[in-house]
Amino acid sequence: MKVGVIMGSKSDLPVMQDAIDILKGFDIEVEVDIVSAHRTPDKLFDYGKNAHTRGLSVIIAGAGGAAHLPGMIASLSPLPVIGVPVKSSNSIDGWDSVLSILQMPGGVPVATVALNGAKNAGILAAQIIGSADKCVLDKIIAYKEGLKIKVNESAKDLQ
Amino acid sequence: MKVGVIMGSKSDLPVMQDAIDILKGFDIEVEVDIVSAHRTPDKLFDYGKNAHTRGLSVIIAGAGGAAHLPGMIASLSPLPVIGVPVKSSNSIDGWDSVLSILQMPGGVPVATVALNGAKNAGILAAQIIGSADKCVLDKIIAYKEGLKIKVNESAKDLQ
Amino acid sequence: MKVGVIMGSKSDLPVMQDAIDILKGFDIEVEVDIVSAHRTPDKLFDYGKNAHTRGLSVIIAGAGGAAHLPGMIASLSPLPVIGVPVKSSNSIDGWDSVLSILQMPGGVPVATVALNGAKNAGILAAQIIGSADKCVLDKIIAYKEGLKIKVNESAKDLQ
Amino acid sequence: MKVGVIMGSKSDLPVMQDAIDILKGFDIEVEVDIVSAHRTPDKLFDYGKNAHTRGLSVIIAGAGGAAHLPGMIASLSPLPVIGVPVKSSNSIDGWDSVLSILQMPGGVPVATVALNGAKNAGILAAQIIGSADKCVLDKIIAYKEGLKIKVNESAKDLQ
Amino acid sequence: MKVGVIMGSKSDLPVMQDAIDILKGFDIEVEVDIVSAHRTPDKLFDYGKNAHTRGLSVIIAGAGGAAHLPGMIASLSPLPVIGVPVKSSNSIDGWDSVLSILQMPGGVPVATVALNGAKNAGILAAQIIGSADKCVLDKIIAYKEGLKIKVNESAKDLQ
Amino acid sequence: MKVGVIMGSKSDLPVMQDAIDILKGFDIEVEVDIVSAHRTPDKLFDYGKNAHTRGLSVIIAGAGGAAHLPGMIASLSPLPVIGVPVKSSNSIDGWDSVLSILQMPGGVPVATVALNGAKNAGILAAQIIGSADKCVLDKIIAYKEGLKIKVNESAKDLQ
Amino acid sequence: MKVGVIMGSKSDLPVMQDAIDILKGFDIEVEVDIVSAHRTPDKLFDYGKNAHTRGLSVIIAGAGGAAHLPGMIASLSPLPVIGVPVKSSNSIDGWDSVLSILQMPGGVPVATVALNGAKNAGILAAQIIGSADKCVLDKIIAYKEGLKIKVNESAKDLQ
Amino acid sequence: MKVGVIMGSKSDLPVMQDAIDILKGFDIEVEVDIVSAHRTPDKLFDYGKNAHTRGLSVIIAGAGGAAHLPGMIASLSPLPVIGVPVKSSNSIDGWDSVLSILQMPGGVPVATVALNGAKNAGILAAQIIGSADKCVLDKIIAYKEGLKIKVNESAKDLQ
Repeated sequence: MKVGVIMGSKSDLPVMQDAIDILKGFDIEVEVDIVSAHRTPDKLFDYGKNAHTRGLSVIIAGAGGAAHLPGMIASLSPLPVIGVPVKSSNSIDGWDSVLSILQMPGGVPVATVALNGAKNAGILAAQIIGSADKCVLDKIIAYKEGLKIKVNESAKDLQ
Repeated sequence: MKVGVIMGSKSDLPVMQDAIDILKGFDIEVEVDIVSAHRTPDKLFDYGKNAHTRGLSVIIAGAGGAAHLPGMIASLSPLPVIGVPVKSSNSIDGWDSVLSILQMPGGVPVATVALNGAKNAGILAAQIIGSADKCVLDKIIAYKEGLKIKVNESAKDLQ
Repeated sequence: MKVGVIMGSKSDLPVMQDAIDILKGFDIEVEVDIVSAHRTPDKLFDYGKNAHTRGLSVIIAGAGGAAHLPGMIASLSPLPVIGVPVKSSNSIDGWDSVLSILQMPGGVPVATVALNGAKNAGILAAQIIGSADKCVLDKIIAYKEGLKIKVNESAKDLQ
Repeated sequence: MKVGVIMGSKSDLPVMQDAIDILKGFDIEVEVDIVSAHRTPDKLFDYGKNAHTRGLSVIIAGAGGAAHLPGMIASLSPLPVIGVPVKSSNSIDGWDSVLSILQMPGGVPVATVALNGAKNAGILAAQIIGSADKCVLDKIIAYKEGLKIKVNESAKDLQ
Repeated sequence: MKVGVIMGSKSDLPVMQDAIDILKGFDIEVEVDIVSAHRTPDKLFDYGKNAHTRGLSVIIAGAGGAAHLPGMIASLSPLPVIGVPVKSSNSIDGWDSVLSILQMPGGVPVATVALNGAKNAGILAAQIIGSADKCVLDKIIAYKEGLKIKVNESAKDLQ
Repeated sequence: MKVGVIMGSKSDLPVMQDAIDILKGFDIEVEVDIVSAHRTPDKLFDYGKNAHTRGLSVIIAGAGGAAHLPGMIASLSPLPVIGVPVKSSNSIDGWDSVLSILQMPGGVPVATVALNGAKNAGILAAQIIGSADKCVLDKIIAYKEGLKIKVNESAKDLQ
Repeated sequence: MKVGVIMGSKSDLPVMQDAIDILKGFDIEVEVDIVSAHRTPDKLFDYGKNAHTRGLSVIIAGAGGAAHLPGMIASLSPLPVIGVPVKSSNSIDGWDSVLSILQMPGGVPVATVALNGAKNAGILAAQIIGSADKCVLDKIIAYKEGLKIKVNESAKDLQ
Repeated sequence: MKVGVIMGSKSDLPVMQDAIDILKGFDIEVEVDIVSAHRTPDKLFDYGKNAHTRGLSVIIAGAGGAAHLPGMIASLSPLPVIGVPVKSSNSIDGWDSVLSILQMPGGVPVATVALNGAKNAGILAAQIIGSADKCVLDKIIAYKEGLKIKVNESAKDLQ
């Protein structure tokens, strides 16, 4: 029950940190690394091929621009892969990373979340673990309850 | 170990059937239903609130246009929800369903697949189950091996 | 003759305030609340189901990203619902909220106004009330006269 | 309690007929006309200026391409104006009519519905009337009940 | 030989000033005014109907958002109308003004220039006058020669 | 008083014919040619440099995809150049030709009309001539009167 | 002096055949293969790593949707890689393949051509070879002369 | 073995400098100039027609907005032309330069790189030279090795 969080560049870390933080909040073990599809293809291959034998359950991969990291990991690994489109500088408004992660061909899915949506990637990873682990499922239920309470409080503030 | 496949309208079935077929190919139990966020909101609520207590592990939800079904199910259920943007008639090239499923706010993820990508939604659901079930994981590995063999055969045909 | 103004998050208030202000300027009673489709689905249901029995005439709902609040309220209420797409942070240039509010399926309309167009949502709500209330209609006519005078003054300044 | 349905060209009629049909189904009187902002500007002015004195309660205006009819009517009339973006030939995928109807400046709202969404324009007009007319409101409630029944029937067909 | 420069709002002046300046540089008389299609429709009508009898040769109209001013003037006047899409605040990246000016229906052209391209609108107006006025044509030729010289100088600076 | 109509490829003729026809209807002389910016650059240069000395008053240039013909002619000629974006096969929905014609840099305008809007290019050319030629202006006025009559007739048919 | 032409799926062959044909027309040796980034990652690695040692000079890679083949080959090979975005079924109007090929991060370029522009990919490969091979350069010059002659002939047909 | 780097305006230099720097890092001779398709068409013609006889091997051309420089150079020269879309002020998010460089018609390719991707243009030019020059190819291989080392170091920093 460990989640691998990888990103194409160190510059993606401020976005991807949200995934790490939320998983730690659910007491789920996280392993963080930088794997660049375009600059470290050998590491990409090793990572993708061995992730499921190394004890990972889910992989979260974030990248910007022509973002090939999530899709290539999904090509190499049988594990569920969550893709986080990162809005990098020189991106065309984020459309490039969104489309190059989302529009995977039939046979090789990537579970794509919103632009810069690393927090939701972390929650989704927890939900995936929770789908077979009652204890984590209960934490998700509690987390959702917490969301409700915060909204209700801000609604009260408004009145 | 059962997957719920729901869609906003019967007209989404030709697209969503791919999810049903691939899951059956993995011997995973599937429960199919029509739940419209906009026309049957009560059913939406019942479905979302009770899915995890009724024995579902993953929910696949497909919808077109301003597609609120996947996000509302994700709002109501602690289970992982996979969203399939369906390119309906009068859609603006599919952008409406893609964006209204993908761009969920922080706290409530939907695992979005490609436009009309119901087949990948089915594979992703199997991968989610496989992340905790060695037997399903092995089927995923075999499925990926099959993809490779088909490409290699078509490469041979080309020569 | 009361208008409900709701929004998905407190962070939408700076945009939505324009609707509140303009309605107050027309001496129309306003009731403001935070209702999150994704974080407080039960409140959403109660709000939508009871709005017309609680004395509301029109509902204005603003939300950003994958904005499901206006459409879900329109699903639940027989009242006219005005949707305000809010350009939130991490939005893809506002396209996500525009399309997820505008592109409602046949049967469940949302009266959509421009991106961040809460002021126009307020005016539209007044026009809806004015379509059956001569006194409010006259205020609309006076308001439009005021717009004309301001433009003419700025034209004079230019010369 | 009469709704004016206008369109920029006779070629918009197949789309706009949906608005006419649904309003007749609610027993609401409809007056249909062709008014072109670009080819009959005088008629546009007369129509817009006199609509509220001629007994209309709501105006539905449909147009394609650089669609100025709904916005110009909203400029001229104090009544609520519903805009229907029509996907005409040579349109750029409908984006032109959507944006030139939706993105009205502060002060002059158009209640915009989905691309080719004339049916929803009709329902919205009925809801506007219903917001002050209990009898029409009840018809809206019944109509929504009918939508639910149809979905439930198609769900039963599926099983 | 007079050019009318109009804009929908005083806030468009910083952009539209470029058109005024360049025309003055060509010694072409300019008449500047604010005419709002949506807030001063009567002034719009007067302006459009009488422009050619008042001695104007060309009209330059700038507006942002759902920009109806250029097209409505083109509807009302037989003169050539140049449209300047202005990127206003709350615009959706300028697409709204570009498309609502450019995509005019058959019969009623607007000569559209680039987003915020008021300078080019001024040059185009001069070219239109120059197409029948040898003296202005020669000024255009000299202007283009000046552009060339400036580029060549900056190229020399580079070396 | 002659208009040059050029296009990048013979395949653009079905679209560009509308410009030729409307100009002939105004009794304006038309000279038609194929000039490819990318395949006949020498012809492009000769055409652009000599158009105003050969007696042309206005140039209409149509092209698809990365459409450089209108802009390059505008670079070479002091005459007003009208650009027609043509939606060619393999175009990305026409956006490529629209943007590569419309978004000219400061100093070199192209009067851009709607996608496939060759008819409007012809009318605009006539308006440009008409801005200095009372006889042509009167034909434009009559043409616009004709548009109005046709709309009014179709409105009568509707009733 | 051999060009490798690869594609992600046999269904890309009708588009990619244009590259093969034009290269054969220049008497340049072509080696065609199917290499799927997502379904045959090992073959992708072998192909990319060994292409330059196997005697290839240039690689043309075509793919649709979330098209990772060109970028991954560019990651693995020091050779110039030409990317052909293919408009596949379920593509979002081709934007997905265009952006996922074009928007490569700094360090790893892909020479991208137009959507479905395999013919131009072939010509570009010939130009790359021609940049160091006088004989191929002369063929390019002759080819461009041929383009000119064809346009001139079609221009004569028009007169 | 010399690369020509040209740009439409001095304001493009901050972006284009990356191409110059990277080529110098590969010890490849660079010749820099400003050539404006729209303001110095004669220089454009001379440059394009003579580049291959003056000893250039590859041309890199950068431009913004309706960017015609790369395509026009490709029209005039038999050499491989690399196009850099520059995101200029008043650009519509860069889409205009991307599409007017990328979408060249069949027969005249431009090797397009990412928005503002001048660094990659320089690397691609080096790869083109390297495809026939073992010494430059080895430098590319070393450069790619350097990219890998940097990523691995930043990965170590992370742990």
